[in-house]
Amino acid sequence: MGETTLAVEFSDIEAAAERIAGLVHRTPVLTSSRLNEHCGSDLYFKCENLQKAGAFKARGASNAVYSLAEADLAAGVATHSSGNHGAALAMAAASRGIGAHIVMPENAVGAKQEAVAAYGGSIIKCESNLPAREAMLEQVVAKTGAGVVHPYNDARVIAGQGTVMLELLEQIAELDVVVAPVGGGGLLSGLALAAKSLRPSIEVVGAEPAGADDAFRSFGLGRLIPQDNPQTIADGLRAGLGVLNFPIIQRHVDTILTVTEQSIVEAMQLQWSRLKTVTEPSGAVSFAAVLEHPERFRGRRVGVLVSGGNVDFDNLPW
Amino acid sequence: MGETTLAVEFSDIEAAAERIAGLVHRTPVLTSSRLNEHCGSDLYFKCENLQKAGAFKARGASNAVYSLAEADLAAGVATHSSGNHGAALAMAAASRGIGAHIVMPENAVGAKQEAVAAYGGSIIKCESNLPAREAMLEQVVAKTGAGVVHPYNDARVIAGQGTVMLELLEQIAELDVVVAPVGGGGLLSGLALAAKSLRPSIEVVGAEPAGADDAFRSFGLGRLIPQDNPQTIADGLRAGLGVLNFPIIQRHVDTILTVTEQSIVEAMQLQWSRLKTVTEPSGAVSFAAVLEHPERFRGRRVGVLVSGGNVDFDNLPW
Repeated sequence: MGETTLAVEFSDIEAAAERIAGLVHRTPVLTSSRLNEHCGSDLYFKCENLQKAGAFKARGASNAVYSLAEADLAAGVATHSSGNHGAALAMAAASRGIGAHIVMPENAVGAKQEAVAAYGGSIIKCESNLPAREAMLEQVVAKTGAGVVHPYNDARVIAGQGTVMLELLEQIAELDVVVAPVGGGGLLSGLALAAKSLRPSIEVVGAEPAGADDAFRSFGLGRLIPQDNPQTIADGLRAGLGVLNFPIIQRHVDTILTVTEQSIVEAMQLQWSRLKTVTEPSGAVSFAAVLEHPERFRGRRVGVLVSGGNVDFDNLPW
Repeated sequence: MGETTLAVEFSDIEAAAERIAGLVHRTPVLTSSRLNEHCGSDLYFKCENLQKAGAFKARGASNAVYSLAEADLAAGVATHSSGNHGAALAMAAASRGIGAHIVMPENAVGAKQEAVAAYGGSIIKCESNLPAREAMLEQVVAKTGAGVVHPYNDARVIAGQGTVMLELLEQIAELDVVVAPVGGGGLLSGLALAAKSLRPSIEVVGAEPAGADDAFRSFGLGRLIPQDNPQTIADGLRAGLGVLNFPIIQRHVDTILTVTEQSIVEAMQLQWSRLKTVTEPSGAVSFAAVLEHPERFRGRRVGVLVSGGNVDFDNLPW
């Protein structure tokens, strides 16, 4: 059986890291002795909620925007996004002085819509399902000629997201395992590729809400299962796994765990109360996996990807 | 006119810093370019919400407990506290292996009661007013012989709280002004003494809820006015200014600003959403003063004391 050629190589991630240095934050790693006791493992929370625009998405969006050729700048960029990628793309575009058209589902979190607007992105509303988002994006592109930067199914974006793992292994070299959330798979695929390239012995675990478990099922069955009517408070993880992301995840991820909505809320509350750091539901899913499956992680050094922190404080899930 | 001898000298703060090194965290300083733009100044948030037990109180309590003579250890320590000092004292006592009796008002924030219990402190409930707290503490001391560590009216506690300013000036040397909340005055008095000793040109500003403004009025009138029926969501700042704290504040604080409840909520929300850091109402009062009086701080380098982050997430003030 021959190996599929993957959309991204490790050298793309290294190039992305160089390209976006200075454009994004080097985010801190937080620890808590009380949470370590609670879980029986050594937890290293990589806080991408403290990233620019409040999520890891700044990495992929910046890498994509700063990869554009001069000739492509005038038409700007476009995407569809439930919010964090949209805000990140608007921010990166503003930083490079070009326009950004962001198609957002009408039920997107208010804080995320505000963030897109604050960075000067132009918001186009649509219905909250993938076909509607894609159709609207096609219209926008037909009208503007903007270059599409897909939130996850894009090699530049995957390479950008992977840079978070270079950083984490520089900060905490001896990790036994790393847990990251999976929605469309941009973060998990880039992170897994970087993790296994730098530290082959590391275990890479994806974490997914049980109510939006297409990645879990696709991974188990070995073929891409479409996302169907996702039901989860983790609004950033409702997307279906991308065709570029899936083969990378198959190659480099060891397992995918699902988590209940209750675990997500518990993880958020513990991160807010013990780490004093604001995580959004999607940002708490990897910690939820540790809480729900503590025996898998007992006694090990665990990197826990906190993917974002953009929340409507008037509409908390408890 | 002779100068009053103050209860604490700068050398006491230096000694406290040495005594509690390793017992408390060196807390980070957070910044946000968006909040700087919002306020027109350079803000340096000193995050004591990330301190052990979630508040600066760990400093004073640790200094007091580790100042005890061997002969006084057996009877343990006691205090009355709306929560953060109680949790900090319980933690410091546990760390030195002695008992802690904590008198708490019956309406104390749940998260703060849980923290005291989690550190092994013995909680004694009382009515929510100063006479009731003091009477109950007297009973406890009569029964146990425990050494009282007052939450603010205690030289060891004042010296301990002052250490936060040594740290902040090591982290950000060129501050023009520092803003800290004032309730009983333990933090503000220690911090002001340290600030003026190390950097005489710095301006020291106290920030107080308008609904609990005894420090503001005492400072203006030049005599100690008792706190009467405080009304504020900042539960940590309902105490009346202490007799040991007031003369230090008179000597070393430049001004006290009051803030509305609305500003406190706005400050909390901006810290949660922009800094992604969980602050309690009292912990947001110094930033509220900057938000309410931006012209006083414009163009200056401002240290903003974030005093604590212990919040009931089921009972947020919005």
